[in-house]
Amino acid sequence: MSALADKVIAACREIAGFSEEPGRTTRTFLSPPMREVHRVLGGWMQLAGMRTWIDAAGNLRGIRTGYGPRLAIGSHLDTVPNAGPFDGILGVVLGIALAELTGGVPIEVIGFSDEEGVRFGVPFIGSRAVVGTLDEATLGRGIGDAIRAYGLDPAEIPAARIECSAYLEFHIEQGPVLDDLGLPLGIVEGIVGQSRATLTFQGQANHAGTTPLRLRRDALAAAAEWISRVECLGLSDAQLRATVGSIHCEPNAGNVIPGMVRVSLDVRHASDDRRHRAVRALVDEANEIGARRGVAVQVEHGLDQPATPMDAALTARLARAVAAAGYTSHVMMSGAGHDAMILAPMIASAMLFLRSPGGLSHHPDESVRPEDVDAALETGLRFIRNV
Amino acid sequence: MSALADKVIAACREIAGFSEEPGRTTRTFLSPPMREVHRVLGGWMQLAGMRTWIDAAGNLRGIRTGYGPRLAIGSHLDTVPNAGPFDGILGVVLGIALAELTGGVPIEVIGFSDEEGVRFGVPFIGSRAVVGTLDEATLGRGIGDAIRAYGLDPAEIPAARIECSAYLEFHIEQGPVLDDLGLPLGIVEGIVGQSRATLTFQGQANHAGTTPLRLRRDALAAAAEWISRVECLGLSDAQLRATVGSIHCEPNAGNVIPGMVRVSLDVRHASDDRRHRAVRALVDEANEIGARRGVAVQVEHGLDQPATPMDAALTARLARAVAAAGYTSHVMMSGAGHDAMILAPMIASAMLFLRSPGGLSHHPDESVRPEDVDAALETGLRFIRNV
Repeated sequence: MSALADKVIAACREIAGFSEEPGRTTRTFLSPPMREVHRVLGGWMQLAGMRTWIDAAGNLRGIRTGYGPRLAIGSHLDTVPNAGPFDGILGVVLGIALAELTGGVPIEVIGFSDEEGVRFGVPFIGSRAVVGTLDEATLGRGIGDAIRAYGLDPAEIPAARIECSAYLEFHIEQGPVLDDLGLPLGIVEGIVGQSRATLTFQGQANHAGTTPLRLRRDALAAAAEWISRVECLGLSDAQLRATVGSIHCEPNAGNVIPGMVRVSLDVRHASDDRRHRAVRALVDEANEIGARRGVAVQVEHGLDQPATPMDAALTARLARAVAAAGYTSHVMMSGAGHDAMILAPMIASAMLFLRSPGGLSHHPDESVRPEDVDAALETGLRFIRNV
Repeated sequence: MSALADKVIAACREIAGFSEEPGRTTRTFLSPPMREVHRVLGGWMQLAGMRTWIDAAGNLRGIRTGYGPRLAIGSHLDTVPNAGPFDGILGVVLGIALAELTGGVPIEVIGFSDEEGVRFGVPFIGSRAVVGTLDEATLGRGIGDAIRAYGLDPAEIPAARIECSAYLEFHIEQGPVLDDLGLPLGIVEGIVGQSRATLTFQGQANHAGTTPLRLRRDALAAAAEWISRVECLGLSDAQLRATVGSIHCEPNAGNVIPGMVRVSLDVRHASDDRRHRAVRALVDEANEIGARRGVAVQVEHGLDQPATPMDAALTARLARAVAAAGYTSHVMMSGAGHDAMILAPMIASAMLFLRSPGGLSHHPDESVRPEDVDAALETGLRFIRNV
């Protein structure tokens, strides 16, 4: 099957050339290069015996009818700016390759128009349309106009509703876990929930030369102590992701004790309860640190998105397919959002990760190993035959 | 003597109105409001029996000749932007008030034209001129032109050399030490040496959701651990000041693990040896933290300014004067630079700090207590009579 793996990888690399920017891959929702993607992949779908259409949300659909329940396989066609060649597109190309391998079996392959949300700051436009959760208010934010400009009619979005019994998504892991374990495939049991917050440490700016340390109310020293606690808590639970990604300090001068520091907090976990407990524990730690130091702590809670489990029965079937194909997989949560997260509440969904060499993604050097693509194809073949 | 203390405070508050900016006090080197300061204080000097002149560096000089060695008392007339009413000017006004109280005693009162270095980024223009260390290269940076624009001749700077046997400077502490101890006066035994450095922590930016904590090379987590070590070392030695005042993080996004963090380091101590050892220890700690975390650490050393001791005999005489006036003083280092630091290598120098309520300085709410001004006047009177 190695020749097919090579074809899949070559197709992804060819499509990476369809870009809004010369010399790098940037392809947002219904941007001009999306037409070329539709043309190339639509042609391949037709060769695999599928009827193709572009739905009113700009998703590329390929449907092959037949006896029995219909499985959908898909992922997204859009990219982040200066992207790699496999994020999203690999899942669509693998779907078409598997449809080609399983002639006669009813199947739908979907290439979602938008998952990254780069063009309008609204992610998952494509997948939300096919499950009927793309509302008028969201469409009003310029998205409806972009759909019309592409020659489509947003009034027809209700007709984009998917009619399948199950959804399978292949995707590169975009993290280092499988590479670190030396395994080709990961069975995704769910997508983590996520909390965001902003913490402000308000101390007292003062002269760095004249103020003894014991008399300071140093906002940065307080924040630094807390950042170490965030890391410590994150390390205490292998499933937890706790990150301080941004920091802002005032007055931010070398010879002035910091008076105010603002930091971000991003916490993710498979268990919403564990996630909420982690956030509460970190807020308590910040308050304890602040009280001890005479530094006022203010917490602004942002996003609180629950975890999305994949379908247990379908996921078990995916695990059996991996084993039948002769591979060892790792059962894991996805720390990033994916189209499967949007489909899962409506349709039984499962997700298979392919190892990301070096954990690299959203970067031109993003890659995938041909033998891992082989493993995904072998697994997909067995999965489809047993759905 | 309380009426004189009130007069001193009122004079400082009046002079705070001579400003480049309406509604706040900003008075830089030879700016227009400096002429009014020269006029008001020059007039008072003359009433106290002094011959006055503006030297070629823009310093206000008042000299009263007589029998015996001549003591100089001074401080600076310029301010930081949005300054308080006592930083610098209080030392000049106290000098004039003491000259008035000690009629007949030979004395020089100096109001230095620049200590803060705000206008040209060059501090201590005034004091460097009177000890002959203001070189041509420095004058060339626009300072010579500013002197000419004020109606003075930079070629005459050599004639500004001071001819006195000793120098005394009164200054607000600009820190919280005396206020914390509940003492009015501080005997300054020296001005601390200072080291500056910039440290860069280079880790690996990555997805905050997909990268487990144990596989991260988080530049901010590394920097935070080090900032806590800086604080810990600073707390271990009451004379040490160790400060991380500025921090810069990249890419500084809430959902991305920080890839690069750059921080400042400011270390001050009375002992140059202790200061150098502290900097070395902190660099070692940074390297240890970086090596353990797979984060590269780069150190750029900046300023390395040695400590300046005040004259031991003159300082002992100042301490006796404080005691004779009936006050308890605290012997301390100055964590900030002052004109006395420039004069000390050439002329026996001593410095007396007045308590800064709340440790506040470089702020419009900067204040001084009338009873502390009284204490300074009583001390100064005894000091002058015994020089």
